[in-house]
Amino acid sequence: MLNPQSVWEDIVKIRERSPLVHNITNFVVMNTTANALLALGASPVMAHAEEEVRDMVSLAGALVVNIGTLNPQWVSAMKNAMLKAHEKNIPIVLDPVGAGATPYRSQTVNELLREVAPSVIRGNASEISSLLSSGAKTKGVDSTMSSDSAADCAKTLSGMYACVVSLSGQTDYIVRNDELELVRNGHPMMPRVTGLGCSATCLTAAFAAVNPDFFAAASHAMAVMGIAGEIAAREARGPGSFQMYFLDALYNICEDDIKNLLRTGGE
Amino acid sequence: MLNPQSVWEDIVKIRERSPLVHNITNFVVMNTTANALLALGASPVMAHAEEEVRDMVSLAGALVVNIGTLNPQWVSAMKNAMLKAHEKNIPIVLDPVGAGATPYRSQTVNELLREVAPSVIRGNASEISSLLSSGAKTKGVDSTMSSDSAADCAKTLSGMYACVVSLSGQTDYIVRNDELELVRNGHPMMPRVTGLGCSATCLTAAFAAVNPDFFAAASHAMAVMGIAGEIAAREARGPGSFQMYFLDALYNICEDDIKNLLRTGGE
Amino acid sequence: MLNPQSVWEDIVKIRERSPLVHNITNFVVMNTTANALLALGASPVMAHAEEEVRDMVSLAGALVVNIGTLNPQWVSAMKNAMLKAHEKNIPIVLDPVGAGATPYRSQTVNELLREVAPSVIRGNASEISSLLSSGAKTKGVDSTMSSDSAADCAKTLSGMYACVVSLSGQTDYIVRNDELELVRNGHPMMPRVTGLGCSATCLTAAFAAVNPDFFAAASHAMAVMGIAGEIAAREARGPGSFQMYFLDALYNICEDDIKNLLRTGGE
Repeated sequence: MLNPQSVWEDIVKIRERSPLVHNITNFVVMNTTANALLALGASPVMAHAEEEVRDMVSLAGALVVNIGTLNPQWVSAMKNAMLKAHEKNIPIVLDPVGAGATPYRSQTVNELLREVAPSVIRGNASEISSLLSSGAKTKGVDSTMSSDSAADCAKTLSGMYACVVSLSGQTDYIVRNDELELVRNGHPMMPRVTGLGCSATCLTAAFAAVNPDFFAAASHAMAVMGIAGEIAAREARGPGSFQMYFLDALYNICEDDIKNLLRTGGE
Repeated sequence: MLNPQSVWEDIVKIRERSPLVHNITNFVVMNTTANALLALGASPVMAHAEEEVRDMVSLAGALVVNIGTLNPQWVSAMKNAMLKAHEKNIPIVLDPVGAGATPYRSQTVNELLREVAPSVIRGNASEISSLLSSGAKTKGVDSTMSSDSAADCAKTLSGMYACVVSLSGQTDYIVRNDELELVRNGHPMMPRVTGLGCSATCLTAAFAAVNPDFFAAASHAMAVMGIAGEIAAREARGPGSFQMYFLDALYNICEDDIKNLLRTGGE
Repeated sequence: MLNPQSVWEDIVKIRERSPLVHNITNFVVMNTTANALLALGASPVMAHAEEEVRDMVSLAGALVVNIGTLNPQWVSAMKNAMLKAHEKNIPIVLDPVGAGATPYRSQTVNELLREVAPSVIRGNASEISSLLSSGAKTKGVDSTMSSDSAADCAKTLSGMYACVVSLSGQTDYIVRNDELELVRNGHPMMPRVTGLGCSATCLTAAFAAVNPDFFAAASHAMAVMGIAGEIAAREARGPGSFQMYFLDALYNICEDDIKNLLRTGGE
């Protein structure tokens, strides 16, 4: 059961250690996710050249692989970075952005997953369900997906790759085999700002860099995302000001915020 | 004649239907334009891999092709996406960023235009006039261009490609053959924020996704850009806060804003 | 000795002339640095295609080469642009982002430096020291580097390439051979926003476009960065709002701000 004290301890570790998070991520959100990592206290680096990804990931506390904007050279760099991270026991967080939307994205994610199982897969219901084989994918996607079926999808995927699955939405479902955590924080403005899903992914990596229990790390990241979103929404008048207050909230988040605002479990 | 009620009806449609706008656009503004589309109520996707652009555009309500940062692979992806959009009757909005500045940009725009005529070409006076053959381009460019000659350039280009031309500046000229619409909204701070021209282009695509009259769609988009800019300027103290308030304004824009602020025609 | 009046005169020139600054820079900060240049009054253009970099730089008042996100095509474009800039006497400002972190970055910077010596190299202590041969690099890097050794590193590098070296940190050291300028402005929030180092680089280019004394130009840029940072910090509540106020401050900076806030020398 998600514990405010444990969330807070991980935040303190991130602020003290400032772990390097190596991101191979999409062009749209690079700036947003670098700023989210900096605001929380981690150190972002973005590097995608095949010539350097192995060296860069070797310096990192965690690797983010995000397929939001792809091309074949990037896919190759992603594989190289994942293999090196695996070799060095560095946690990998995979964000299958838009998986299911085009065959190229779905094939790419499957290729990456065949190469190395990540520590955590973080996506929305549509993306997570698209990673299941057609046999397992029987209950629909996205907003039409019931909470039972979202959790079921996440469980199936977790079993397939022996990894944590973090399925985000109005309620976030974090799954490792039969373990299930629910995070109920967040705000409806969040999907109106580009890159907040990708920010959840990179914060998951920051938590994984300081907490070897990746199920806890993924849960803590979603809690912090949701709580910072609620704090941002207090003063935001639209998605422009929301984005600004969100970064300020990540920077200022304190133990009392976690204690007072964390909403978990209870389904 | 531009009608506040029609502008508002299109905004309502965008908010209700949340059309997918597929952007092949430049690296500088991807985040800015994705946020502008989300703030207004549309759904942005950025994808440029040749491996997926045909599939992605097939899902979209409109395609944006913006040449702000080019390379040969992107140009090829742009052509493929435009051909598929044409085949499927999906509106295409072309932004010839920097056309005229280098031969490569001018050649690229001409190549794209030979491939498929877009539904709308949106650019500033310098860019629009650079697309005309040297014979037609006799009256100068940019701030030195008189309003008459800007409208003339737009008319000539509209005739050449049988498309709508949306020429933005202090006054926006929207032209389809002999039809001319003038939008007089906007604020001098707008050129001091990068990506607002590109945002005008992607909002034009969002309106074209819900309104098959592309002349009206282009006019509505420029009206909304200008009005949101005027609202943002009320509280902005510089281009940083202007950009934030602009997104908030797109999100909050209401029927009364359109009715009270729309300034059109009257030249 | 850094003179408030000279700083102010350069700002006025930038606002009057709006010099075109051609940036070949990394994906993470393109939007941030374009907005910083626009806020101060310069005209940014980002272009990296080998097909157009020579043409584009020929139109520019200064060239920025920033290696933050590399691949071989970009490195080739950087070389072409630097050679053309050198041929046309256009100032070049090189930002060796992350030099020393991976062999590929270090090799790339050395390749670029062998091709053409830039007018200014701007980086942090770790990056600057990594550009020295191992023999010269004896006193450590980063926060562990004493102020003496930071200035020594900058001096050695300045001598090696007969260029200005601008080493930024809590105190900025600007060096040309035996000349040394210290700028003590700035705020601890600045490293918590991505792209502010890269913004320092592009503002250095803007000043170099209006002031042929590159030692003065580099010093003026660091003074303006630091002063705008101090102004932004007055109202900022975190890195989100800091970034917004920083752009507003660049836009609004006035002669009295320079006179009242400039802190220089005195070590």
